[in-house]
Amino acid sequence: MHGNTDQPRPAAAGEHAGAFSVEWDHRLITTRDALSPGNDVLANLLPAEEGPSRMVACLDQGLVDAHPELPAQIELWAEANTHLVRLMGQVVTLPGGEEAKNDFNVFNEAARVINDRGICRKSFVLAAGGGALLDAVGFAASSAHRGVRVIRMPSTTLSQGDAGVGVKNGINAFGKKNFLGTFSPPWAVVNDSNLLMSLSDRDWRSGLSEAVKVALLKDASFFEELRRLAGRTRTRDLDAMEGIVQHSAHLHMKHIIEGGDPFELSTARPLDFGHWSAHKLEQMSGFDLKHGEAVAIGLVIDMTYAAMIGCLDEAVLKSARCCLLDMGFTLDHEALGNQEVLLEGLREFREHLGGQLTITLVQGIGEPLDVHEIDLTVMRRAIDDVRSVALNESSRVG
Amino acid sequence: MHGNTDQPRPAAAGEHAGAFSVEWDHRLITTRDALSPGNDVLANLLPAEEGPSRMVACLDQGLVDAHPELPAQIELWAEANTHLVRLMGQVVTLPGGEEAKNDFNVFNEAARVINDRGICRKSFVLAAGGGALLDAVGFAASSAHRGVRVIRMPSTTLSQGDAGVGVKNGINAFGKKNFLGTFSPPWAVVNDSNLLMSLSDRDWRSGLSEAVKVALLKDASFFEELRRLAGRTRTRDLDAMEGIVQHSAHLHMKHIIEGGDPFELSTARPLDFGHWSAHKLEQMSGFDLKHGEAVAIGLVIDMTYAAMIGCLDEAVLKSARCCLLDMGFTLDHEALGNQEVLLEGLREFREHLGGQLTITLVQGIGEPLDVHEIDLTVMRRAIDDVRSVALNESSRVG
Repeated sequence: MHGNTDQPRPAAAGEHAGAFSVEWDHRLITTRDALSPGNDVLANLLPAEEGPSRMVACLDQGLVDAHPELPAQIELWAEANTHLVRLMGQVVTLPGGEEAKNDFNVFNEAARVINDRGICRKSFVLAAGGGALLDAVGFAASSAHRGVRVIRMPSTTLSQGDAGVGVKNGINAFGKKNFLGTFSPPWAVVNDSNLLMSLSDRDWRSGLSEAVKVALLKDASFFEELRRLAGRTRTRDLDAMEGIVQHSAHLHMKHIIEGGDPFELSTARPLDFGHWSAHKLEQMSGFDLKHGEAVAIGLVIDMTYAAMIGCLDEAVLKSARCCLLDMGFTLDHEALGNQEVLLEGLREFREHLGGQLTITLVQGIGEPLDVHEIDLTVMRRAIDDVRSVALNESSRVG
Repeated sequence: MHGNTDQPRPAAAGEHAGAFSVEWDHRLITTRDALSPGNDVLANLLPAEEGPSRMVACLDQGLVDAHPELPAQIELWAEANTHLVRLMGQVVTLPGGEEAKNDFNVFNEAARVINDRGICRKSFVLAAGGGALLDAVGFAASSAHRGVRVIRMPSTTLSQGDAGVGVKNGINAFGKKNFLGTFSPPWAVVNDSNLLMSLSDRDWRSGLSEAVKVALLKDASFFEELRRLAGRTRTRDLDAMEGIVQHSAHLHMKHIIEGGDPFELSTARPLDFGHWSAHKLEQMSGFDLKHGEAVAIGLVIDMTYAAMIGCLDEAVLKSARCCLLDMGFTLDHEALGNQEVLLEGLREFREHLGGQLTITLVQGIGEPLDVHEIDLTVMRRAIDDVRSVALNESSRVG
């Protein structure tokens, strides 16, 4: 008997430790008319060697309203690719917008569809819509069977250039944005630029502030490009917008792949530049302010603060303001008048990240700077200044 | 202007792809009386360099019933370690057992506590209890703020030797076990052997089948040890049980760290040996059968099948049966009479894994074998055989 005796192991404390890692691929494809017959972008994403993959399509109601042809296009695309895909039942339409994230309704509905249609860990959810729809459906899909494959088709400038490219999803809870969610890399992200054409002017513009943000953090030449193209975005030039969104998405993706902390296990979150106040302003406005609109204001607040504490050249602040104004952003909101509530955003931001407060500012274009303390007196002055500059500008325009 | 022209990028399709990986540490400590004043196991897990970490403790009601001293012990432990930990409010008691996973109630309650007590991504949830409590609280904790730190203290032989050591959590939905959940490595797992003392005989025994399973898959000498110690586990010898649980936990942990697929992104799930029928039997019995009891039967079903198709020596099957019987398991259940419903478990198992069916059998001790087809005629005979052998055995005992 292997020389064993009948004695059990001693009752001493034992410790086992080890490390392991998990690897993911991340894919981003920019195209136009992804679902038209001649476009093979989606088909090329499906693993032919596994036989036809089951798929269910979940579309944002707002997207279907703007593109009523989409459900039929998806069915035709699936019929043309039966060797690759088996569409499980009809295309599902779910409500989008921030409301979609405020309870478990959209999450539950997506989970139910995944269950009822026999979607497994090797099957696909094709989720198309704005960031909120992608977040809620993505959270359900990353939880169902502990994660099924998701192809994201963001449909707004904001989601195509920013959140849709990332590895996060979630819903709001307890009055807090994204309180519940996961880090879960999508199978692929397909940015269909033509979907942007039908956006309202506000939605078309809104995502540009995230492009300005990532340019300020990481890429001076992109910032110059944004300044040059700002006017053309305002006149809804799709070529200009596509280039900007693609560049912004690529920088976000590079941050995930090369940034060293894709699941944000450390404290710093450089891409949250301008976001502590943006999240709070959205909430204070009852989500009347769109995320991108709030980010535009948030960037100016934090850059004004950086200039006031002597970190940032005033000319950079002015240049960023000009760029945002040229794009059509309004850099003021009545919520700025309620400083005490707004400043609670700093505490909530620290709590969401955990541990020490880390706010990313810029000390120049492409030069991020992490600070761990905020001088509230200066921050109050910065917020006042943002308001009064905006008032002066608008009175000049008037 | 950097030589740029006013032309935007061309409107061509663009593709960006890259891979990234995320690394985690995994820690498992076996101890006794983790919360007694002289034990520094828990204190050593907390990161002193970050200052006192916030912590909330969520305990299984069943555990507190058996150990009413635990909440006060946790408070005393925190008071003795104020440089490391700041307990946020009173110890929370939540219902455990499979019921805890059948809806969002425990999940929601844990998420609410995490929110209300200001637990952030650098704070800790100390979750102590059986596998179901750890699964439901773990899912909430891995979703809140997209993941706060969790220290797991499994309190049953099953959770200490098996599920509690792993990286999975979840709740049941749509009548399916673990339909919603995540892969999320805990900060650490602390196995306190003394917690096992208060278990009922059934709960004390139940986890041993998972030890038999992992021994059959991976470790012939551990299987010999289990055969030798089986009788002592039946007389509730804690030293014998601690050795077995520790060995089983270590093999499970090694599988996660060294197995190459901790998040089960491929199809095979060798640790699910015997589980397709076990999950179904649990459900068919209205969860009257405990998970470990169902696994004992499931192992014998799949080994009988393996012997019938000529993969496995009959002697190994007999040896495994003997070991399970010596431990006190009953290798029969009336649900075995309903073969058609039971065999649906194969379909559900395939669906949960996704893609091709992969069932892990053994062709010898320590020699797993993946098969992708099950001959249903033979499987029906195997299930009949399990019943009739069990009936013969019980009539002999009578």
